Amino acid sequence: MIANSDQYEREDLVVPEQEKATVIFQPSGRRGQVDMGVTIKEASITLGVDIEGICGEKATCGKCKIRIEVGAFEKYGLESRLDSISPVKEGDRKYLNEQQIQDRYRLACQTDIIGDLVVFVPEESRTGKQVVRKAAGEITVKLKPAVRKYYVELAKASLEDTLGDFERLTEELKKKFKLTGLTIDYQALLSLQKLIRQGDWKVTVSVWQGKEIIKIEPGHVKKSYGIAVDVGTTTVAGYLCDLTSGELVATESMMNPQVVYGEDVMSRICYTMTNPKGLEQLNQTIIKGLNQLAGRAAVQAGIKRNAITDMTIVGNTCMHHLILNLDPAFIGKAPFPPALHHSLDVKARDLGIKIAPGAYIHVLPIEAGFVGADNVGVLIAEAPHRQDKMELVIDIGTNGEIILGNRHRLISSSCATGPAFEGAEIRYGMRAAPGAIEKIEIDPETKEVRYKVIGNEAWNTDEENLGTKGMCGSAIIDIVPQLFLAGIIDRTGRFKKEFDYPRYRVVDDQCEYVIAWAKETSIDQDIVICQDDVRAIQLAKAAMYAGAKIMMRTLGIDKLDKIILAGAFGSYIDKKSAALLGLFPDCDQKNVYAVGNAAGDGARMTLLNTDKRREADRMARKVEYIELTLAEDFDRVFSQAMWLPHMKDKFPNLEHLLPGKKETT
Amino acid sequence: MIANSDQYEREDLVVPEQEKATVIFQPSGRRGQVDMGVTIKEASITLGVDIEGICGEKATCGKCKIRIEVGAFEKYGLESRLDSISPVKEGDRKYLNEQQIQDRYRLACQTDIIGDLVVFVPEESRTGKQVVRKAAGEITVKLKPAVRKYYVELAKASLEDTLGDFERLTEELKKKFKLTGLTIDYQALLSLQKLIRQGDWKVTVSVWQGKEIIKIEPGHVKKSYGIAVDVGTTTVAGYLCDLTSGELVATESMMNPQVVYGEDVMSRICYTMTNPKGLEQLNQTIIKGLNQLAGRAAVQAGIKRNAITDMTIVGNTCMHHLILNLDPAFIGKAPFPPALHHSLDVKARDLGIKIAPGAYIHVLPIEAGFVGADNVGVLIAEAPHRQDKMELVIDIGTNGEIILGNRHRLISSSCATGPAFEGAEIRYGMRAAPGAIEKIEIDPETKEVRYKVIGNEAWNTDEENLGTKGMCGSAIIDIVPQLFLAGIIDRTGRFKKEFDYPRYRVVDDQCEYVIAWAKETSIDQDIVICQDDVRAIQLAKAAMYAGAKIMMRTLGIDKLDKIILAGAFGSYIDKKSAALLGLFPDCDQKNVYAVGNAAGDGARMTLLNTDKRREADRMARKVEYIELTLAEDFDRVFSQAMWLPHMKDKFPNLEHLLPGKKETT
Repeated sequence: MIANSDQYEREDLVVPEQEKATVIFQPSGRRGQVDMGVTIKEASITLGVDIEGICGEKATCGKCKIRIEVGAFEKYGLESRLDSISPVKEGDRKYLNEQQIQDRYRLACQTDIIGDLVVFVPEESRTGKQVVRKAAGEITVKLKPAVRKYYVELAKASLEDTLGDFERLTEELKKKFKLTGLTIDYQALLSLQKLIRQGDWKVTVSVWQGKEIIKIEPGHVKKSYGIAVDVGTTTVAGYLCDLTSGELVATESMMNPQVVYGEDVMSRICYTMTNPKGLEQLNQTIIKGLNQLAGRAAVQAGIKRNAITDMTIVGNTCMHHLILNLDPAFIGKAPFPPALHHSLDVKARDLGIKIAPGAYIHVLPIEAGFVGADNVGVLIAEAPHRQDKMELVIDIGTNGEIILGNRHRLISSSCATGPAFEGAEIRYGMRAAPGAIEKIEIDPETKEVRYKVIGNEAWNTDEENLGTKGMCGSAIIDIVPQLFLAGIIDRTGRFKKEFDYPRYRVVDDQCEYVIAWAKETSIDQDIVICQDDVRAIQLAKAAMYAGAKIMMRTLGIDKLDKIILAGAFGSYIDKKSAALLGLFPDCDQKNVYAVGNAAGDGARMTLLNTDKRREADRMARKVEYIELTLAEDFDRVFSQAMWLPHMKDKFPNLEHLLPGKKETT
Repeated sequence: MIANSDQYEREDLVVPEQEKATVIFQPSGRRGQVDMGVTIKEASITLGVDIEGICGEKATCGKCKIRIEVGAFEKYGLESRLDSISPVKEGDRKYLNEQQIQDRYRLACQTDIIGDLVVFVPEESRTGKQVVRKAAGEITVKLKPAVRKYYVELAKASLEDTLGDFERLTEELKKKFKLTGLTIDYQALLSLQKLIRQGDWKVTVSVWQGKEIIKIEPGHVKKSYGIAVDVGTTTVAGYLCDLTSGELVATESMMNPQVVYGEDVMSRICYTMTNPKGLEQLNQTIIKGLNQLAGRAAVQAGIKRNAITDMTIVGNTCMHHLILNLDPAFIGKAPFPPALHHSLDVKARDLGIKIAPGAYIHVLPIEAGFVGADNVGVLIAEAPHRQDKMELVIDIGTNGEIILGNRHRLISSSCATGPAFEGAEIRYGMRAAPGAIEKIEIDPETKEVRYKVIGNEAWNTDEENLGTKGMCGSAIIDIVPQLFLAGIIDRTGRFKKEFDYPRYRVVDDQCEYVIAWAKETSIDQDIVICQDDVRAIQLAKAAMYAGAKIMMRTLGIDKLDKIILAGAFGSYIDKKSAALLGLFPDCDQKNVYAVGNAAGDGARMTLLNTDKRREADRMARKVEYIELTLAEDFDRVFSQAMWLPHMKDKFPNLEHLLPGKKETT
């Protein structure tokens, strides 16, 4: 990106095209050359420095604060000057006060580089290594993989028998295994002659769907491998399975490397729309990630990566499109039609995925613009369509997806929860990484707090300084009901102003409650929850609740038999906190289940059993997608759901926990 | 290739690795740098200079004579010295006499470059632009192409109708055209969203085999194109057809660009076996050629190359393997099993062929190691399997392929004719290029000769100097029967020594007959046919005749109803000369047909009608391949066929032309 003169107030900032600037990032010391005119955020991506950022460079999250270091050549090896950046913009002023601007703080996404520069990334802006919580659940599925191995011994070609290698092979496969009409992958064909002779006319072939030979190996090879992958917006998990036994032989997970381009789905879609090569970049980034994941899983299992002959992938609609290199622009705006719903079998080499080159990648179907293949994975794993009980399945990822129904009818919808549960839009929100508060309790009497930090066994009450940096999702789910039960906020979420205790204060006309004092943190600031934060959490939970409500009305029911909390996030939140917050309608607590990464489980089931692939395609089309915002009274349903836990609904299962009504209104 | 010390007699010739030499070729003036140690032939390939050569650099054809120019820097811009090449080798001495070696002549394939050099390529060693004779014949075939176009108008996506683009498209195709179960090519899928919107929800799709969408175009596009390609060892021809009308819209042909790697099949196979990247080079060369051909045909027809959505290819087994990048090593040695017999549908992009990226390339099946897809093309075009008459189909290309039979039974075989008919192994043999004698008549009385040269309307008797360079195949077929009928050679092919006339002489103990005097030529040498040449032609014709004979015996027949001469070569030879030479058993001359490029016709028929593809696969398996050399009395059958036209067989249809037996033995 080259600086345009009209981007700046002063004409003299125009820089010559194509010139390069040298940038050094501290404290990592990472350095390199970037094009003049790119933002510091873009430079950080280019140079592999992770800077927080959730908004896709739209200056709406304020997470990417950095400081410009100014100094002479001696200190940094280059002349770093304040006029090497663009002037302060409006976006900076939204998140930085005058003192900070004076201290050379800026937002990395708002600051253009127009000269050599040293940039300091403060700890709170560094992307920590997320605690990846996508362990594999127990699954039970009949073994019926797409790829099977067959071993044959062939008669050597002779002058009396000059049959071609392929026909020699297929005739033997027909004779011995009754396989007919086999075709061969072009890449496999290229290796055929050599490997047949290498194996002294004894070979093992991998056959896909009983139709196509996709791999040839010399001699007798018994084991066969496939990998199921769940591509989340934030986390990618891979489950390497032995296709001959169904056994899980390796689990690998990693941050979705696309995170540097924006933390949520919308900011990534936005990135592809505003950058000419954005789609290609995001596609290549995740493909590279999948290759790393498969490579690591193979190493863990002690096999070669090209021994992997099958792969299934689930992911939300945006991930689905980005993996397939399909433009996500149309799923980013109304009416949100995806490029396709059906599952897709694409050659690994067409996608650039480095497993056996003849292998197919099976990408699961998607239901609708916002209900993706990950939700289909959940469907396959939880199978509400096989049950009589009225079941609500909530997948709380970066997007909220809901399925409601039973064997008679299933409906789905997508809620615009926003990224609040993931820590965005919350002043001290962060991802589940070391230093994040993951659990909060407030004493209703003293209004004092007790919290636990990821990476520490102890609670804050047992230890002085836990290196706290912020709150992750499970703490965000805890905090509002805790404030409510402690009487600090009322049923509408408003701070009660009549109290006076040390943790309560008003800053810039806004009430806030101090969770951790600066001295307990590693960022040297009080970690607080303010009125705006509470509102953001209410908006998120109300979206979820309203969605469930409208869906229940659509099916004509007023009671849920069972609630499934799917998604890694669902496993870590406190069920009671979620119920008290009013994330979903009333249900007996013992019928609320956290099932972990059900999407990943579904991916594994389709890897091991092709019937499940057909079931996925059938169910993806059968589930009726409900566009919630089309409901006439959506606004009313939504605003009632803003209350804690709800303005009007009864919660017989929570009544013993809720304060009497007279106290709380 | 780096020079090895043991390649040379003198130790001091060892050169440092990686060093480069500058080489200039004259008279073209082409210059460039090459690795030390490569041969002059290899350097010529690298620098794009065409030097003749038929033997694959094995010093068995002697066609690649060049002269080393020696001179100071002033003349050539570099110091060209005789010690910049390896010492004279045995191979050189086979084709060069002491005087020539003294005059700095060498064989390009035998001479390694070990210093800067100027190389002169004499006219007889330059590859002329071959006269390509692969015009399209008339074909009649029902139109049933693999790729058809369908135009649909779609309802725009809306919030009430958020169906995905692919499903929206397929549902409309199902409704309007009853197309069900359609899949979509991955590359086509990538363009789907954009093109649907570009066409304002009106699109034309190209569907392959009623199964797969391979191309999307915005709006209503009516025309649909495919190209049929015949890849010969020497010539490549492409026939661009309108798939909606069957009309031939462009014909393009070119030399097979692999020719620089060796002129016949065996020398190319040899090249792949002796060069580590040989297969890749030969594959890339022909793929590049096919891309040029398709590009030129598209330009000729005024369409874009990616408007071509289908391609069929025929070629002999070696060409088939090289196009598919399959190692031809195994078809180069007994028992000659091909990699596969079946036809193959490969994505254009997998082969690197630049037509519509989603298109399939249909490569026709092959019958046996030496009976290739070109012969299947001939089968489809001539359809002996639909006739009652006993038909002999001879395809005289670089290889001789024979089909014999009728609707009841068909057998095929391959004859090791060798490259004599193509001009190799014949001292003044050359390809059909300007300057080549194409027709020869000898007056039995005067023993004087009359000949016609390609590129000239006149005969040598009408004009003084026709710039003659050598004889092409049709003249090679003429000359032996002409010598025989003129009584210059006897029935066994031996020169009769009792005569004395100006054109007869004995040089180096070998009889020869002068066809053109040096002054009539552009090479300043007498063009002669010598005893060895006659023997080489006899060996070639005997292989063909013996093949036909053994096949007739296999079917238990002693008479042919019909002979088809397929291949471009067959169209240009004189039928009577061929019969008198004894290229095939006796047959009524009016039932001997030259059908031109039947292989190309077959390729076109399979392009236009998919039933013909099935027929090709069926027939390729049904034709019984006969390995001629397995016949017990092959040697006897062969040696009897050496005679002119045969030692014992009767030729009732030629009797009036043949001299009385008493005269000729």
